[in-house]
Amino acid sequence: MLKGYTLPRTPLGRSSIVPHPPWHYAGDCLAVEFRGDPAAVRAFLPEGLAPAEGDDRNRCCAYFVEWQASTEGGEELLDPVRSQYRETIVLLSALRGGEPVAFCPFIFVDQDVSLLRGWIQGWPKLLGSTRITRHVPIRSPASPALAPGGRFAATLAYQDRRLAEAVVTLRETAPGLPRPGFARTVNVRHFPNLTAGKHDAPALHELVQLRSRDASFSTVWKGEASLVFHDHPFLELPALRPVAVDAGYRFSFAMTVDDLVVLQDLRRP
Amino acid sequence: MLKGYTLPRTPLGRSSIVPHPPWHYAGDCLAVEFRGDPAAVRAFLPEGLAPAEGDDRNRCCAYFVEWQASTEGGEELLDPVRSQYRETIVLLSALRGGEPVAFCPFIFVDQDVSLLRGWIQGWPKLLGSTRITRHVPIRSPASPALAPGGRFAATLAYQDRRLAEAVVTLRETAPGLPRPGFARTVNVRHFPNLTAGKHDAPALHELVQLRSRDASFSTVWKGEASLVFHDHPFLELPALRPVAVDAGYRFSFAMTVDDLVVLQDLRRP
Amino acid sequence: MLKGYTLPRTPLGRSSIVPHPPWHYAGDCLAVEFRGDPAAVRAFLPEGLAPAEGDDRNRCCAYFVEWQASTEGGEELLDPVRSQYRETIVLLSALRGGEPVAFCPFIFVDQDVSLLRGWIQGWPKLLGSTRITRHVPIRSPASPALAPGGRFAATLAYQDRRLAEAVVTLRETAPGLPRPGFARTVNVRHFPNLTAGKHDAPALHELVQLRSRDASFSTVWKGEASLVFHDHPFLELPALRPVAVDAGYRFSFAMTVDDLVVLQDLRRP
Amino acid sequence: MLKGYTLPRTPLGRSSIVPHPPWHYAGDCLAVEFRGDPAAVRAFLPEGLAPAEGDDRNRCCAYFVEWQASTEGGEELLDPVRSQYRETIVLLSALRGGEPVAFCPFIFVDQDVSLLRGWIQGWPKLLGSTRITRHVPIRSPASPALAPGGRFAATLAYQDRRLAEAVVTLRETAPGLPRPGFARTVNVRHFPNLTAGKHDAPALHELVQLRSRDASFSTVWKGEASLVFHDHPFLELPALRPVAVDAGYRFSFAMTVDDLVVLQDLRRP
Repeated sequence: MLKGYTLPRTPLGRSSIVPHPPWHYAGDCLAVEFRGDPAAVRAFLPEGLAPAEGDDRNRCCAYFVEWQASTEGGEELLDPVRSQYRETIVLLSALRGGEPVAFCPFIFVDQDVSLLRGWIQGWPKLLGSTRITRHVPIRSPASPALAPGGRFAATLAYQDRRLAEAVVTLRETAPGLPRPGFARTVNVRHFPNLTAGKHDAPALHELVQLRSRDASFSTVWKGEASLVFHDHPFLELPALRPVAVDAGYRFSFAMTVDDLVVLQDLRRP
Repeated sequence: MLKGYTLPRTPLGRSSIVPHPPWHYAGDCLAVEFRGDPAAVRAFLPEGLAPAEGDDRNRCCAYFVEWQASTEGGEELLDPVRSQYRETIVLLSALRGGEPVAFCPFIFVDQDVSLLRGWIQGWPKLLGSTRITRHVPIRSPASPALAPGGRFAATLAYQDRRLAEAVVTLRETAPGLPRPGFARTVNVRHFPNLTAGKHDAPALHELVQLRSRDASFSTVWKGEASLVFHDHPFLELPALRPVAVDAGYRFSFAMTVDDLVVLQDLRRP
Repeated sequence: MLKGYTLPRTPLGRSSIVPHPPWHYAGDCLAVEFRGDPAAVRAFLPEGLAPAEGDDRNRCCAYFVEWQASTEGGEELLDPVRSQYRETIVLLSALRGGEPVAFCPFIFVDQDVSLLRGWIQGWPKLLGSTRITRHVPIRSPASPALAPGGRFAATLAYQDRRLAEAVVTLRETAPGLPRPGFARTVNVRHFPNLTAGKHDAPALHELVQLRSRDASFSTVWKGEASLVFHDHPFLELPALRPVAVDAGYRFSFAMTVDDLVVLQDLRRP
Repeated sequence: MLKGYTLPRTPLGRSSIVPHPPWHYAGDCLAVEFRGDPAAVRAFLPEGLAPAEGDDRNRCCAYFVEWQASTEGGEELLDPVRSQYRETIVLLSALRGGEPVAFCPFIFVDQDVSLLRGWIQGWPKLLGSTRITRHVPIRSPASPALAPGGRFAATLAYQDRRLAEAVVTLRETAPGLPRPGFARTVNVRHFPNLTAGKHDAPALHELVQLRSRDASFSTVWKGEASLVFHDHPFLELPALRPVAVDAGYRFSFAMTVDDLVVLQDLRRP
């Protein structure tokens, strides 16, 4: 019998691109809370989600993260090319049954395991190149301080084109994380059919909500920020470019994922 | 309404990682026909396929291909980072209802669009680095001739480890392509669930057969070959390492894909 | 005794990043002849070169090449990651002692061996990502024909930013190569000092001229073309952006290099 | 006049691959002190250096570092793809005029600016892929603690082949850095000639010693370690593979470089 949580499935079950859950994550995050054009934000929401209201109406957040991930036993940590990846996540505020949730129109990672682990949860991951200024825990002109005035930047590129650039200048610690947050994001899990006549009738098309557990975060630094989305010939990210920027954040985050809630089947009856 | 053949689905539908079929392919292929250990070959076959018999019993083939792919209109050809990728495909001979078919235990590409386009068809694609000696159509010590004595090589790496190496020395033209061929491969289309309690109950788990059309190939060159699979800590490819090598091939190939045949649902009732 | 044509020098002399000459090259080239702003072209010329005159005054050429390179014996061809690289070359017309020559303000490759092999000859190479549409020798919507109407494109990126884009539509064969050509380019070979007080007194600073031998080229296709240089925060390539485009070319090229002519020491006496 | 510390030299002088010194560095280091075969260590030393003696005779150290680097003003920190690189450094103990020094037979980085900045100082840099387990400053199964029992690993690959693997388990803090240290390394600055007849008469061939200033380091963690160098077809690193491993270290380090001492011209008279 072939074994494995995903393809490739093999006699020993050791070759799956995505190993069996749970999946543990720890990362350093740079984030920018911003406001998108309200009509554009609304246009990106899937069936089953309503636009956020009031002050959250067009609130968005871009996250840039250097992640390290492992499964039980942590063997990936001893072969770091297996466990490390960099990610850019764009989130929009929305409502589901009156409750505030986040929805992700675009997300980019740089490893296959993360790409597919994302698709399993409905994250619309593409392969992109994310770069984030690091804090080295020693005083140097080559490392910004985790202190007022420390400046951190992040960039995103897709297929040799620069797509996003952010700069955050730390000012003070903050009591909480930016909003919308990514730990309870609602995604559309979608997997198409290729059979002739069924190209527009996906095999999977459902609203799902992430379940993370054991989430924790470090001291949160907050300050002013800038965020730019560059033009692109086919990625529609620029439609969500900031009309205003609220604040920037830097913090470390950890969580574990081994569950997913299916909210609604979106296929036509 | 959000549009797109795959995630990300967007208002204009221009951002999907995989564009709407049909998908056109053209590529230069280096291939090595080899024999695997018969028990190992059998152990990699999924439910619904039987081992090949007679001379095909343990016949396998490794393909190394520089592909260029496009959709209708061909706009990807004018932004070549979108259309080019390199691929390593390992195929095993098998039987389905008494008919000879191919099954793919391992396959590696270097672009996100190809990775996901593969998963939609059940190809168990990982991100790997394939390199293939090129023929430049001019006489030079830096380019092997497409003629008797021309030597071409290919290598595959996954996550910074060399996994496979092949060398083919052309001797003569051949009437046909190596076997098993990739155009009618039978795959297992598989997509897992993450909901707690359902990790071993995939959302999709079915035997499918590729449908390609408009396939054509150039002159086929054939000669002697070598093929090595290196040890790897978790990818089980070395279990299929050659016990003998039959022949090597070089040719160009083109085809179009816009269909898939679902043969059998493999989920437990 | 340590041995090697370059660093690293080792007991067996097998580890040099650049192997001992001669170096054989064969490649597929896409080229666009264009006109730069005459003052900008003049401003990029080093001491020892004069601006070209007449119709050559502001004639420039951008080359995009998929190279394969080897040394004697050709062992690199059997490990293609060692022998293959992609390159973008920008050339300006100039005069040296009344003779027409080419000068290279910017050049980008994607392999270490090519980067250093370039510096040894005065090519100012940076690591960049070049992509070029391929011709696959089989009829397919996924491959442009080497025939009237065939459209080929090339792109260049540096550090996650798109820097240049070219498109060439073939119309007819041409009797010769685009101008200026790269085989007899005049470069400034330059190597700085780091010793305090000598940062502006380079160890090497001399005008050199390439020597290639055994150069040959295939049928040359020619047609209309477009070429764009995008803005960049510090690379001054956009100063040379086309004020007009003359023509585009596609051809294969081969040559051997094992010599260099030192024309003039440019260091202050 | 063209300006720039290195090629490319341009009208504004903003395009040099290596910017004008000083260069500031800050990085997180994993290091393994080991013993090489004494004859092999001796065989890698250049003219002008003598083998170390006594307990230092065959003492070597492999460093794996995630660096961030900047020049005055620090603009590179706001475009992190410009400032970040990963490096593997192998050092051998030696004597120069009776004083203990370090000599570097092999070093690998992943950015062009670092490659050339190294060559200017005689570091024999190649482009390689280094990966190092990160410490994320939050408690998580996906991040080793900077505490007794924390396990960190590093790997090096060159051209799709795994070359080195290290694991360090932290046990206690240590009073100082591993030996030999990299801040005062003696290198051979070497730049070849290509002119016919001069291939073996380099333009530069001299013993140089690094000058760093403002060096500082964090708490140093120490523990047991393993280190493996894999076979390679032409890189001679395996000749230096460990006959014993002394200890592993993890620490952060910062320094500034803007000087170099030329010790001796090694060219034949």
